[in-house]
Amino acid sequence: MNVLLVYAHPEPRSLNGALKDFSVARLEESGHTVQVSDLYAMNWKAPLDASDSVSPTIGERFDPSLDSKHAFENGLQSEDIALEQQKLLWADTVILQFPLWWFSMPAILKGWVERVYAYGFAYGVGEHSDARWGDRYGEGTLAGKRAMLIVTTGGWESHYGPRGINGPIDDILFPIHHGILYYPGFDVLPPFVTYQTGKMDEARYKTTCDTLGQRLDNLWTEPPIPFHPQNAGAYEIPALTLRDDIAPGKAGFAAHLG
Amino acid sequence: MNVLLVYAHPEPRSLNGALKDFSVARLEESGHTVQVSDLYAMNWKAPLDASDSVSPTIGERFDPSLDSKHAFENGLQSEDIALEQQKLLWADTVILQFPLWWFSMPAILKGWVERVYAYGFAYGVGEHSDARWGDRYGEGTLAGKRAMLIVTTGGWESHYGPRGINGPIDDILFPIHHGILYYPGFDVLPPFVTYQTGKMDEARYKTTCDTLGQRLDNLWTEPPIPFHPQNAGAYEIPALTLRDDIAPGKAGFAAHLG
Repeated sequence: MNVLLVYAHPEPRSLNGALKDFSVARLEESGHTVQVSDLYAMNWKAPLDASDSVSPTIGERFDPSLDSKHAFENGLQSEDIALEQQKLLWADTVILQFPLWWFSMPAILKGWVERVYAYGFAYGVGEHSDARWGDRYGEGTLAGKRAMLIVTTGGWESHYGPRGINGPIDDILFPIHHGILYYPGFDVLPPFVTYQTGKMDEARYKTTCDTLGQRLDNLWTEPPIPFHPQNAGAYEIPALTLRDDIAPGKAGFAAHLG
Repeated sequence: MNVLLVYAHPEPRSLNGALKDFSVARLEESGHTVQVSDLYAMNWKAPLDASDSVSPTIGERFDPSLDSKHAFENGLQSEDIALEQQKLLWADTVILQFPLWWFSMPAILKGWVERVYAYGFAYGVGEHSDARWGDRYGEGTLAGKRAMLIVTTGGWESHYGPRGINGPIDDILFPIHHGILYYPGFDVLPPFVTYQTGKMDEARYKTTCDTLGQRLDNLWTEPPIPFHPQNAGAYEIPALTLRDDIAPGKAGFAAHLG
């Protein structure tokens, strides 16, 4: 299988760097082919702007969506964007690995999402009708592929628990799991989260690698998070609210789990 | 009063650009002093890395937290970072204005948070003891100041409703409201969100400005979102979970509202 690991940490000799090297080695030992997009090493351009197309803006002013669509459809995208899209199409599984900074992904990785997820590639795909609202949330260009997050954080696991002060980790990651990965079609596996990174010693590192290794061994068999597909009946269209008989009485992110 | 508006959109002739200009004019008409950090116009460097300090890394390898602390404490921060910190200290109210891209802020603004929120400035502040877990979540360097988001999105309001497919807007913004703004001490006002930006016409734009103008007029009197302060008794320390008698039986982001 082909695995793309998109990695965002500025220091190779960090815990994240070690876990990245471990993951690549483990996957290759299992016979998989791995490509790594090491965003800091690539000096990835984070901000989405008009220079993401090699042609001038199509209107008088830059429109992030319409100019992205024009560049994608006409082969006018900046080369770094097109190369990452090719890697996504090549991959059977995509792993995003990063330290949780201010309760989300680092800016450089957010900029990878914004620029690589072109209109026509990751959004604006498929037809809108009374029965469908585009190919998204379970359908789309990347349907049939799997995705997983590998995340580190300095906080304690209890701080990210159901009643922890930071909010539950599943809710913090929902906008990434559901909004960035499930949206263009990925089946999303539960995340691999390492807490209290400041308290890492050799024994804990070994345990962490053992657990991560098992997760990587099971990439192709582990059941994904059971989000509801958008167009299969769980949502009213076009309001895109859950039908009354789905998770009745529930609201919030967790209501979208089947 | 002093207002800092941190603005992240690549096109000045956009809806966001118009709302930014409207906000600055309205605040100045009311007698306030406004500074704008227009991140795209400033060519703001998004990725946090070792060059954020003008000195070499203090250890053999770059440590995002410890090197940030050293640079902050010793006046060795990159000048762009120090300037933004000065603006934050100057401001009575801070507004972050941005289009919602992939259910969070644009990368360039996330990078502003990561780089400006230094160790010793926005986190790692205050003492840890049996009764306190640092000055954060309601206390900290920016306590006493107010903050508000101005956000635009192409999606419909129902898509961001309690049972909407994107998740409730309050939950999507919680990591910013609570994790980025309340964390270093801001009182956080309810956000100003404009939906369906693709369907904006003159009449809707006028209504939008009228409503936004009223929000700006009430910046100093509107009640903030009632998050629980960390160190005032609502949380067990050090687990940092809500005490059993606070929001009993509730879990998730909404449990942290008083």
